[in-house]
Amino acid sequence: MRQPDRSSGKPLYRQIADDIERRIACGEFPPGSLLPSERKLADKLNVNRSTVILAYEELRALGLVESRSGKGTWVSSNKWGITPTHSPNWHRYVEGGYFLPNLVFLRRIREALRGDPQLIDFASGELAADLAPGDEMNALMRTAGRTEYWGYDNPQGYGPLRESVAAYLRQYRDIQTTESSVLITSGSQQSLYLITQCLLSPGDAVAIEEPSYCYSLPMFQSAGLKLLRLPVDSHGLQPEIIRELFKKHSIKMLFVNPNYHNPTGTVLDPQRRSRLLDIASELAIPIVEDDPFSLTSYDSVPPPSLKSIDRRGSVIYIGSFSKIAASGMRVGWMVAPHAVVDRLADARQQMDFGPSVIPQIMAAEFLRSPDFLPHLERLRMRLLYKRDLLVEALNQQLADLLSFTVPEGGLHLWCKLNAEANDGKLLEEAIRQGAVFVPGSVYGSESGYLRLTFARTKEAEIRPGVARLAAALKNVIG
Amino acid sequence: MRQPDRSSGKPLYRQIADDIERRIACGEFPPGSLLPSERKLADKLNVNRSTVILAYEELRALGLVESRSGKGTWVSSNKWGITPTHSPNWHRYVEGGYFLPNLVFLRRIREALRGDPQLIDFASGELAADLAPGDEMNALMRTAGRTEYWGYDNPQGYGPLRESVAAYLRQYRDIQTTESSVLITSGSQQSLYLITQCLLSPGDAVAIEEPSYCYSLPMFQSAGLKLLRLPVDSHGLQPEIIRELFKKHSIKMLFVNPNYHNPTGTVLDPQRRSRLLDIASELAIPIVEDDPFSLTSYDSVPPPSLKSIDRRGSVIYIGSFSKIAASGMRVGWMVAPHAVVDRLADARQQMDFGPSVIPQIMAAEFLRSPDFLPHLERLRMRLLYKRDLLVEALNQQLADLLSFTVPEGGLHLWCKLNAEANDGKLLEEAIRQGAVFVPGSVYGSESGYLRLTFARTKEAEIRPGVARLAAALKNVIG
Repeated sequence: MRQPDRSSGKPLYRQIADDIERRIACGEFPPGSLLPSERKLADKLNVNRSTVILAYEELRALGLVESRSGKGTWVSSNKWGITPTHSPNWHRYVEGGYFLPNLVFLRRIREALRGDPQLIDFASGELAADLAPGDEMNALMRTAGRTEYWGYDNPQGYGPLRESVAAYLRQYRDIQTTESSVLITSGSQQSLYLITQCLLSPGDAVAIEEPSYCYSLPMFQSAGLKLLRLPVDSHGLQPEIIRELFKKHSIKMLFVNPNYHNPTGTVLDPQRRSRLLDIASELAIPIVEDDPFSLTSYDSVPPPSLKSIDRRGSVIYIGSFSKIAASGMRVGWMVAPHAVVDRLADARQQMDFGPSVIPQIMAAEFLRSPDFLPHLERLRMRLLYKRDLLVEALNQQLADLLSFTVPEGGLHLWCKLNAEANDGKLLEEAIRQGAVFVPGSVYGSESGYLRLTFARTKEAEIRPGVARLAAALKNVIG
Repeated sequence: MRQPDRSSGKPLYRQIADDIERRIACGEFPPGSLLPSERKLADKLNVNRSTVILAYEELRALGLVESRSGKGTWVSSNKWGITPTHSPNWHRYVEGGYFLPNLVFLRRIREALRGDPQLIDFASGELAADLAPGDEMNALMRTAGRTEYWGYDNPQGYGPLRESVAAYLRQYRDIQTTESSVLITSGSQQSLYLITQCLLSPGDAVAIEEPSYCYSLPMFQSAGLKLLRLPVDSHGLQPEIIRELFKKHSIKMLFVNPNYHNPTGTVLDPQRRSRLLDIASELAIPIVEDDPFSLTSYDSVPPPSLKSIDRRGSVIYIGSFSKIAASGMRVGWMVAPHAVVDRLADARQQMDFGPSVIPQIMAAEFLRSPDFLPHLERLRMRLLYKRDLLVEALNQQLADLLSFTVPEGGLHLWCKLNAEANDGKLLEEAIRQGAVFVPGSVYGSESGYLRLTFARTKEAEIRPGVARLAAALKNVIG
């Protein structure tokens, strides 16, 4: 048996259980065979007996082994549900349902980050702790947290937060709305989930930008949607393509991210915005506008939202706290016609009975607080500083190997390699060198693109991180 | 036009918008016709002009009217998607997807409660504010809330909370588990949603108790599951029936609520527990054990969990904070084999990226806090007191009209009417008299049953609430 690795992030008992599971699967321990006693295995692997007990418990829960006190532990001889007494075949259940597993590259990145805390992170699309309003929130928790309210909430979300969000949208996004058209969600992810699950049906065609973070969300495929592509150039998507696509496909919805688009960082051109709205209206296609980044605009003048110039009620608007305050709060919002909000709120009751009231209370207070605008200004300043550090390091260390456009807002920088490289190979080599990024193919682009996020990376890590990427690139492209 | 009702809970602009929508629908305002100017309508209805502006904005968002400044507002002449320039037909989208709307009776009850704060509430299955640990939580928020952590969390949930939950389950429910088998969820509702969506497929047959709160959850039907019934008598479900059902149907999963069953309050008999586990194991059917109420045991000795006597890993265990602390926190947990937890955590990333970290921090602290056990003891004492008030009032005022068994734990009392009555009629009459309950048919029972929840009702309201129910019953059965 393999000695467990104490420096790995994985608990020892899990390592032992996984090792035994592999050996059972490959026939080293055949069905019915006795496993070493707990004491013996503990001695052999130099771990506590309780660790082995947990490992065997894990295998028992999987139905792979059985134990009886005094008789020891043996490999289950009726592993996959043939004979009359056995555990459920959990593996079969796990393969059921219609949820696709998350993308291999994203799982690999998550696993690498979990296994090695020293890895320099250009992958996670979120703010570092030093960009989050931690002090402000902790202060709010002390002062504003007092509440008498601990029950199930209004299905649309906590009333005072819906009012705060409506006021925020009027002030910062020029969106004229009221609390009755606002649905509070567990972040943009839940907004998109509700829309794809409740307003669309399997087989429906929807159009999304190419590249688009939507490709990184298996939820679109899980919902059985057919994805049509709207190529993005340096001015964003080209609205006329929607009309062409519409000739062949009955497009049921458009998903767009017009401001500091993820992953390319582009801003949709003003004339294209009007064209987009006109065409959508003409073809009666609703637009879902995801707008997480606009307030990170480095010059403090956010581009207008589509929703603010939507005269015909074509746009469902999605926003959240994740990219401007803290993703861990899980507070997002959606603005839609009341009939839509009402339907989605009702369906959400079946999923989770609505988000926790505590972060909603804090978010409501924070949006109203005099600390909110200073926080935004500091956030913009520090993001700009990190962007500049990244751009400078890339220009110095990688100018010959890749090219990019400098973004004016958002958290991401989109790079194109000047030479061919295999996405998977490059990612593995980068992890080996100690840095991680997201391959462009995750967003539906062809291979040879990288998304580098600078919001999560510590300032002092940006230059050494780029050095590690450069080493990886040179090894792979050679 | 109808004057808006200022004493109703509904905002004035929504009342006006709804009224106009109705008039458009019934042809009073035909397509293309001009609506009164904002100023005129405001004068006529004696409201602010801004109220009318919001009402028109709402109708615009629904695509029912169009406006142009200087030209006024008129009924859209291309309402439902025929001519080339119009809004999306939101109503069509709202009818799409596969989520069934929530049950009519439950919507009616929610609406009634929202409209009339004086209604005495025997319907809501949650704790009143005076039973929630509000002071303890507010204190925790001040002292324990300091955190540096604001990012996306581990997909299984916040590590320290998973450890707290594992310790809690060992201590209070005799369940030997570790943090790696614990998934933190947004309450039991999300646990059930994940199981029905990710481990089962449309067309699968599952067996649930009859009556069962599961019937009140359209999620089972939304997931396309076939429901088989396990009748509950005063000792809980009868396990042998599972074997009989299995002869005809390939049962994929059992959903049970063995302790202070919702709605009947029964506790599953110890011998039936063992039989249930044996039969489930023999037939290789996983059991989902929902255990929200056991710690409310009035004699402080909770019945054992199925999971604690599950030797073959057949049981997925579900618990939450909702019925022992505060439903508004939205903190629940599931214990399952690691492969299942891993799969559900991964799928949940597609739905909402996991629950907010803030209530998770608070829940972790609360479970470890010296205040937790005293809170539980106070909760039991006060629930028992409320139960006694309800039983006394029923015996005095309704002994001739209904019968019931006195529950030894939980929040609910299940009554059988001694005479025939129409569920819907009785509910409407009760609302008219100023009290609300849940008709038994919501839980799949035949008509003539009522679930009375005493946890939400204020102590001083219980006796007058029963008087209102008695008046309603006498009017309906008369």
